[in-house]
Amino acid sequence: MNNITKPTLVIDAAKAFANIKRMQQKARRANAVFRPHFKTHQSVETAKLFRKSGVDKITVSSVEMARFFARSGWNDITIAFPVNLRETDAINHLASSVNLNLLAESVYSLRFLEEKLSHKAGLFIKTDVGYHRTGLTPENKEIDKMTRFLERSKKLVFKGFLTHAGHTYHAKGKGEILSILKNARTRLNELKQRYIKQFPGLIVSYGDTPSCSMADNCSGFDEIRPGNFVYYDVMQYHIGSCRLEDIAVVVASPVVAKHPEREELVIYGGAVHLSKEHIEADNGFKLYGYVVPFGNKGRGEPIAGAYVSSLSQEHGIVKIPAPFFNKINIGDLIGVLPVHSCLTANLLKEQILI
Amino acid sequence: MNNITKPTLVIDAAKAFANIKRMQQKARRANAVFRPHFKTHQSVETAKLFRKSGVDKITVSSVEMARFFARSGWNDITIAFPVNLRETDAINHLASSVNLNLLAESVYSLRFLEEKLSHKAGLFIKTDVGYHRTGLTPENKEIDKMTRFLERSKKLVFKGFLTHAGHTYHAKGKGEILSILKNARTRLNELKQRYIKQFPGLIVSYGDTPSCSMADNCSGFDEIRPGNFVYYDVMQYHIGSCRLEDIAVVVASPVVAKHPEREELVIYGGAVHLSKEHIEADNGFKLYGYVVPFGNKGRGEPIAGAYVSSLSQEHGIVKIPAPFFNKINIGDLIGVLPVHSCLTANLLKEQILI
Repeated sequence: MNNITKPTLVIDAAKAFANIKRMQQKARRANAVFRPHFKTHQSVETAKLFRKSGVDKITVSSVEMARFFARSGWNDITIAFPVNLRETDAINHLASSVNLNLLAESVYSLRFLEEKLSHKAGLFIKTDVGYHRTGLTPENKEIDKMTRFLERSKKLVFKGFLTHAGHTYHAKGKGEILSILKNARTRLNELKQRYIKQFPGLIVSYGDTPSCSMADNCSGFDEIRPGNFVYYDVMQYHIGSCRLEDIAVVVASPVVAKHPEREELVIYGGAVHLSKEHIEADNGFKLYGYVVPFGNKGRGEPIAGAYVSSLSQEHGIVKIPAPFFNKINIGDLIGVLPVHSCLTANLLKEQILI
Repeated sequence: MNNITKPTLVIDAAKAFANIKRMQQKARRANAVFRPHFKTHQSVETAKLFRKSGVDKITVSSVEMARFFARSGWNDITIAFPVNLRETDAINHLASSVNLNLLAESVYSLRFLEEKLSHKAGLFIKTDVGYHRTGLTPENKEIDKMTRFLERSKKLVFKGFLTHAGHTYHAKGKGEILSILKNARTRLNELKQRYIKQFPGLIVSYGDTPSCSMADNCSGFDEIRPGNFVYYDVMQYHIGSCRLEDIAVVVASPVVAKHPEREELVIYGGAVHLSKEHIEADNGFKLYGYVVPFGNKGRGEPIAGAYVSSLSQEHGIVKIPAPFFNKINIGDLIGVLPVHSCLTANLLKEQILI
């Protein structure tokens, strides 16, 4: 680690691989296709860990990301984002060489695609099972209009109903999270039953890390698409999706100043490295990451009472109690367990897998 | 704008140039060197607007950024960040070709630099005038130790005292902001008087956009280093540093879904484009950007009642009242005035200057 000079995402390959295997086994037990979301890591190296596990179907959240992974040989890709009609050229290019699935939630978008697509693509109807970010609720009449359109489509192959239960991130505890999963299963399967005769191959696809991590049983979904689980993070630990030791990434950050009067370190590691994602508590308490020692042997155990308390563009402020504070020198590295690994991995150009 | 397919930072060169000229004139009236902070834009194109105005000294916040601008011909650069001792190789390389100023706040760092530097560099003592993020308060005994060290240094040329009054961002109104500036001026000049005989060329350097924008008079500082003012943003508008029409950047974002039942648009434009920086109010209200129409003629006036209400990795949710909601189609572009233009510009790879 001596050659680390800037904030660097250090990926623990063994932890990431264990996280992958655990989720893959859960998918197998549920008899569900495992189509992990690659937006979390966006890394060719981490993708190889999935490949090594036998994964060959992936999810991404942009056309750009689909192109990135197509270039490194992934050829069965779902872009789990309402299709961006301004990118049909790039979509056509992709669909000419990989099995591509798109998402839509309006006949308007389907019509546009039917006109512009030069190759066949799979199409999922984005379904809202309670998160209320995107998608159609199961009772929305637009679904019937879309399936009627898809029945006659020459370009779009209807694949089924896809949802992201992102409200698990705001749930209060495991019980609520599992009931979100259960409710999603019921709602998606009602839709499946309603249309299965018309479209015998249709599937229901579900994905979010909290519920897929916490449920013992993911059966009832034909496909699961969690993403964050490969790295996990402090947010997932707070939700209860993982143990701290499952977090597979740490941001090695140079210490640039020490303030003994307030037991604070200043690190090179700010909003442009970690992102401004944080966890809030009462009295204005904000947490931008947990802190671990980081040296030549890699990372140590989280330091009790230490955390990243604020971020500027390039600076991080680390609160760190006295016994440990005194052991750190300017120029040393310290490790930060990020609050939201997806955003941190997206920001950090410097990455090493160990 | 028809060829915009992804979230794109559209920079209004005329607005940015006017913002530059206004601040430059303020520096001239104050008889202060104008050394703008380039961390906001990190753009070769925007840097040319400064060059056109006659600016030849700049501030950056990392060694990497210094290298980036050195490559495009900038040769008088202050890295306004506590020097990262792990990057002395890159610093040596830079110092061999440009006038480079570094920051430190401990004798420990000075000793390390004295040993490792192969070329002379300027050195500012980072001074804390109340923000309490980094730097030494004027009464800190370390300052005396550092100046004694610098007197004998063969590599480090003492340049003076530098501060960033970042607490202006948390101030309540113009009065408080101007009193922060006044206090900083007093404290820095006390330091200057204390050491000017020993170091006849020393200067005091000050910088932050809110106070430099709101003060009629920036005299009493030898140098000012604001950065954000070139673009401004919604945060600066809320603070009172600028008018909405001074904001020189807008994120052109494709509309990918419409939800009439809640008057919401889903845009391709999320946390990886805008950053999670936001403004909060009571009752959990969060604002991630204001919304303007965006078409072939560029941007329109802010739409009353419209704002970005939440962000996921790639999605943005835009609340937009009915009369305007109905005019927008999936596939159209909408403009977002960002909350924090520095973080947004750092994230967005797609940029056009018009």
